[in-house]
Amino acid sequence: MPPLVMKFGGTSVADLDRIRNVARHVKREVDAGYDVAVVVSAMAGVTNQLVAWCRDAAGLHDAREYDAVVATGEQVTAGLLAIVLEGMGVDARSWQGWQLPILTDNAHASARILDVNGGELTRRFQERKQVAVIAGFQGLHKETGRITTLGRGGSDTSAVAIAAAIGAERCDIYTDVDGVYTTDPRVVPKAHRMDKIAFEEMLELASLGAKVMQVRSVELGMVHNVRIFVRSSFVKPEDIDPRQTPPGTLICDESEIMEQQVVTGIAFSKDEAQISVRRVQDKPGVAAAIFGPLADGNINVDMIVQNVSADGATTDLTFTVPAADYDRARVTIEKAKNTIGYERLDGATDVAKVSVIGIGMRSHAGVAARAFKALSERNINIRAITTSEIKFSVLIDAAYTELAVRTLHTLYGLDKA
Amino acid sequence: MPPLVMKFGGTSVADLDRIRNVARHVKREVDAGYDVAVVVSAMAGVTNQLVAWCRDAAGLHDAREYDAVVATGEQVTAGLLAIVLEGMGVDARSWQGWQLPILTDNAHASARILDVNGGELTRRFQERKQVAVIAGFQGLHKETGRITTLGRGGSDTSAVAIAAAIGAERCDIYTDVDGVYTTDPRVVPKAHRMDKIAFEEMLELASLGAKVMQVRSVELGMVHNVRIFVRSSFVKPEDIDPRQTPPGTLICDESEIMEQQVVTGIAFSKDEAQISVRRVQDKPGVAAAIFGPLADGNINVDMIVQNVSADGATTDLTFTVPAADYDRARVTIEKAKNTIGYERLDGATDVAKVSVIGIGMRSHAGVAARAFKALSERNINIRAITTSEIKFSVLIDAAYTELAVRTLHTLYGLDKA
Repeated sequence: MPPLVMKFGGTSVADLDRIRNVARHVKREVDAGYDVAVVVSAMAGVTNQLVAWCRDAAGLHDAREYDAVVATGEQVTAGLLAIVLEGMGVDARSWQGWQLPILTDNAHASARILDVNGGELTRRFQERKQVAVIAGFQGLHKETGRITTLGRGGSDTSAVAIAAAIGAERCDIYTDVDGVYTTDPRVVPKAHRMDKIAFEEMLELASLGAKVMQVRSVELGMVHNVRIFVRSSFVKPEDIDPRQTPPGTLICDESEIMEQQVVTGIAFSKDEAQISVRRVQDKPGVAAAIFGPLADGNINVDMIVQNVSADGATTDLTFTVPAADYDRARVTIEKAKNTIGYERLDGATDVAKVSVIGIGMRSHAGVAARAFKALSERNINIRAITTSEIKFSVLIDAAYTELAVRTLHTLYGLDKA
Repeated sequence: MPPLVMKFGGTSVADLDRIRNVARHVKREVDAGYDVAVVVSAMAGVTNQLVAWCRDAAGLHDAREYDAVVATGEQVTAGLLAIVLEGMGVDARSWQGWQLPILTDNAHASARILDVNGGELTRRFQERKQVAVIAGFQGLHKETGRITTLGRGGSDTSAVAIAAAIGAERCDIYTDVDGVYTTDPRVVPKAHRMDKIAFEEMLELASLGAKVMQVRSVELGMVHNVRIFVRSSFVKPEDIDPRQTPPGTLICDESEIMEQQVVTGIAFSKDEAQISVRRVQDKPGVAAAIFGPLADGNINVDMIVQNVSADGATTDLTFTVPAADYDRARVTIEKAKNTIGYERLDGATDVAKVSVIGIGMRSHAGVAARAFKALSERNINIRAITTSEIKFSVLIDAAYTELAVRTLHTLYGLDKA
């Protein structure tokens, strides 16, 4: 049987009782015949404590030292889980990022994985069926020999990269939800869990705030074609029937999804702010004059809408930034007023972005048009629109977010029966 | 200037305020021109929490996993101290045991240091005067690539080994006492701090329970002739006059001590238990029959007294064990009764060992005889005596411990003026 990767996040390993629960899940898969690599996060709360200490130690702290400190959280969990597994009679050992090694670049605190050496894991699978318990979130920068971390949610990325390295059948992400939903069930009670979703769709959902999976891990899964299964860690291992597919959502290549929906899910985000630059010169270099300073200030610009100029001389340019960066973004643009050349700056923070995602859009015309019509029938004003091959987003007044999401969820036939 | 090693224990780095205090001590030495390597323990309480988790995870836990878990405590302190130092404008970086590396044997949880590679530290001293902040207590087993720990108090050993590796002028042990005393000041108010003590004497004091320094670290200091200076970490760095020798005790080669006292210090231990095996056969192999099973049971035997047989056939054999092992030791001897062949087993747990230490004994006769006389004048009964070249110990009723220690302290002229 091919190996299997199982990943457990911070709430799933928050204390020793939960770590024991995790161990029973691992044993269940070992008993089913799998060679298992488990990737674990720090116990819930531990990373926050470590980060707080670093911040307390110095306002501007060396990211290399920060990484050495925060990587300890995962190291502790990995050791404890190995001890519990061995106590249950399962051969297991812990692996730190530097031990495998998991090589990363030098971008401390948000490093990217370059290479995972799974050779020793495979050797031990074959030799003695030893379970590998791997500290997630961390790696090694080869040239400096220093510990790196991948940034928040990085354990997902560790898990997918390891799955790719050892040729795992699947990467199971155990989390506090039981899968990926068509939209937030707290907003739309009729939202339902998807059985399958394509990598591209999940990427859009993840980056739009569905929060189930870290974006980079989905990217990595797509590139290496690692099937990712999102499932609940709170199900008791004893309650799982090995003959049935457990509840969860499989993130996979679109070719594996037989009946492709036109629209798969609806995402939304209220942490948006809109800035409109009025009557800017419609000439080359203006966009650079606006977005250059924003990039320099590390302000993440999302939607950008520029209309074709009506008078051939000036135009309006609208973009969105995270609500937290709104004031800073305005000041930045005002400072650059002379370089940019514009008449007036408008803005709003009470806006929301609603996005409709589906690979089927590629082959179905008019998907977005139906949405515009449905929203207008509800008197929801669309401030801006952006589109890509498999999604479109509308910017609306925040007050209408829930109404818009519910309307679109029903429109595209996503309500559960 | 030669490099300097500074070591700070758990109470000295218990929180960020204390870590800042440590950083100011380091900066003081950097400003004085030293190249500094700092060795740190885990923040007070952290190691206990990690150990408790390991115990909770499984009764019999894998020592390799235990080491991976508990080594994180020192890793966190090292990173935080490096951050604080950099925040103060001092170039610094943290080093894990596996990074230098500090190579040890494979005896997880109580590993011995085999080799310390100080080359990179020296290079950075010369190149940029960078302070090395080193996680104490931990190392690397080269063949397996796994993290080892040195056992409780191991950070002292790390510090001395590093001092030897980089040829440090001195290894300063900052601790919660301000030096080594002639005996416990809580028992003898007239006890005084020694300015200097020879390695051999400190070894005897340390192993007899003076608790200031770990035995192995003193051993290592003696072998590599690393001068160890025990001093208080609670003195404010601002209050130290750089022109004066600070309060503390220097542990050094005896040749560095001009006026050698006959007796340097008095140690005592109440955690003793005595077992007497009555009328054993006085023939070869009997001692092995008694102490073999005790060693197999990991029971540490300390004093052993066997008299020359009076009747040429049988004799009494007395030995001491830690009080906690008394019951187990008795059972062990009783089980082996047939092999050993003895008449009766006597024992007592209300006994104490008092030891008199001094290199001067080597050249002064009658030192012990004076003690026996003084103790008998106080009506203190001596149950057993052992002697070595530079110390002698008496086993007495525990109730007389304080009286005996005070009597001997005065007898050998150790009371402060």
